[in-house]
Amino acid sequence: MTTTQADNPTRGPVTRKDVARYAGVSTAVVSYVVNGGPKKVAPATEARVQHAIRVLGYRPNAAARALKLGSSETFGLVIPDNSNPFFARLAHAVEDAAAERGFALVLANSDANLAKERRNVRNLASRQVDGVLLASVLFEPDLTDLELADIPSVLLNQGREAPGFNSVGVDLAAGARLATEHLIGHGHTNIAACIGINTSEEMDGREHGWRQALKDAGLREGIIVRSPFDRPGGYEAGRRLLGAADRPKAIFASSDLQAVGLLRAIREAGLSVPEDVAIVSFDGIVEGEYTWPPLTTVTQPVREMADCAVDALLAAKRGEAPQHRIFATTLQIRQSCGCN
Amino acid sequence: MTTTQADNPTRGPVTRKDVARYAGVSTAVVSYVVNGGPKKVAPATEARVQHAIRVLGYRPNAAARALKLGSSETFGLVIPDNSNPFFARLAHAVEDAAAERGFALVLANSDANLAKERRNVRNLASRQVDGVLLASVLFEPDLTDLELADIPSVLLNQGREAPGFNSVGVDLAAGARLATEHLIGHGHTNIAACIGINTSEEMDGREHGWRQALKDAGLREGIIVRSPFDRPGGYEAGRRLLGAADRPKAIFASSDLQAVGLLRAIREAGLSVPEDVAIVSFDGIVEGEYTWPPLTTVTQPVREMADCAVDALLAAKRGEAPQHRIFATTLQIRQSCGCN
Repeated sequence: MTTTQADNPTRGPVTRKDVARYAGVSTAVVSYVVNGGPKKVAPATEARVQHAIRVLGYRPNAAARALKLGSSETFGLVIPDNSNPFFARLAHAVEDAAAERGFALVLANSDANLAKERRNVRNLASRQVDGVLLASVLFEPDLTDLELADIPSVLLNQGREAPGFNSVGVDLAAGARLATEHLIGHGHTNIAACIGINTSEEMDGREHGWRQALKDAGLREGIIVRSPFDRPGGYEAGRRLLGAADRPKAIFASSDLQAVGLLRAIREAGLSVPEDVAIVSFDGIVEGEYTWPPLTTVTQPVREMADCAVDALLAAKRGEAPQHRIFATTLQIRQSCGCN
Repeated sequence: MTTTQADNPTRGPVTRKDVARYAGVSTAVVSYVVNGGPKKVAPATEARVQHAIRVLGYRPNAAARALKLGSSETFGLVIPDNSNPFFARLAHAVEDAAAERGFALVLANSDANLAKERRNVRNLASRQVDGVLLASVLFEPDLTDLELADIPSVLLNQGREAPGFNSVGVDLAAGARLATEHLIGHGHTNIAACIGINTSEEMDGREHGWRQALKDAGLREGIIVRSPFDRPGGYEAGRRLLGAADRPKAIFASSDLQAVGLLRAIREAGLSVPEDVAIVSFDGIVEGEYTWPPLTTVTQPVREMADCAVDALLAAKRGEAPQHRIFATTLQIRQSCGCN
């Protein structure tokens, strides 16, 4: 192992001039190689410069480079919680999409806390990232800090258009309708909903889709329980639903994690899925393939949304007008609904 | 919504000089406020400067600041896959620990692929992050790029000391021994192991601990199956173990995800956990509380390790000698082992 210090015990850091001298080129050519332009360098010359950089342990200054380019080639991503498998997969896909376009990703969790989300956004603004992707706890978050710093942003996981915002999301209502209609297709008439709690005042698109599907089928509205989107939230919702006078025979859950909690509550009550209670949930996380029974779920196209979100950020950087991009979901049929 | 452009339609970006004039202070005072020093500024003056920054939409240049401070106040984190709940939790904890110390976190997934890990490390080195935390696929990864750039590093998830490296991890062998001894305590004598596949040539510490516990109890060695650390890996291992002539009555699994896969294989074979096959696994992810039955597991102190890793990085930055920091695990007893 060698270090810059070890190679140059008696002097300061290696400079661009040292590299130029060693490689027998001008300092401008060293800059072109380090910055990938603006002028092209012959492959043989570039190889000589790269060799010199390696031998001398030259460290081009990233801060100086960022100052010159006006870009740190970094995006920020703020999500509620990457311990939630859906957001973990989304973060991974956004990182891949950003990397393919030459950008690194600063990750920040808001823990679904508005104050922490604001702190994260302000922090990213002060770091002058090239753009921010935000899965906000609000439908219309305050992005003043980003606007003042002239940093474009895209809202992730956004089911409906928020005027003036760039956003990417799935059609939550259509997905919930798919799920509910599938349960109706199994002959169910008493279908409850377990819906996640949002800070937003707006009705969750999934709740809307569940209501519409029941209405269109001429069925009465089932019980609705609101609880956090996580496993404990689903577990609590399950205990309340099973304790209801008119116990539901089927449940639409707004997240797979809630369904995992429901499964536990149903099992602890000595009941079976799907025989006593059928379940269809939402998201399409891998964990749902391994529950017992495996979850029938409305799957979100995470990778496609991540690609689209990063492209939307680049479009916003170029000054294009805000757009809402909506994706369709698909029903992944497994066994919790009653199918074999 | 306002933007810098909207406020200043006819001129270039707002400068430090504009802020100084508006607030009635010198440009040096503006710098002190923006950089938090080196000289102190009276609270009333600071409030005036902050107000001017806000009103004018002044954007201090982060790149210029990084150049001056010689730091981007950013750490890099490379993990195999944040879709693995253990690494997602670790990444979240490292982000919190870094944020508390004033550093943002660039996250990079290697997908447990050595070439991608090397690319990630090189990319972080060229960005001159202040330090890199690396959960490597190798026991002794090549960190030349970081050393050349004089960037300190800490290996995460490292069970044993790798000479010359800063590292943080748990005592894998002691944890596996705890798990295996617990199964022996339930009266089991035919205890198999499902061990994750590492790129490393070294024996996994968990395998070592399992072997030692059996040996010390005077038991013959059980079957060992090697498979990836994930759910499909556990599922495949389960199918192989259940198909063995001498079917094990208990299994130690090197990750909770493998145990989730084992549960599925056992259920599909028409067998029950813990009645037909008992399981104890490793990591302590939340998912293990919600499987059926819930997993008895060896829990890693993720938050403490993350704090320690970030402190180790700061110590390395100060030039302190490499150290290996090892944490103890605890046995979280639930029901997959046979306890009630």
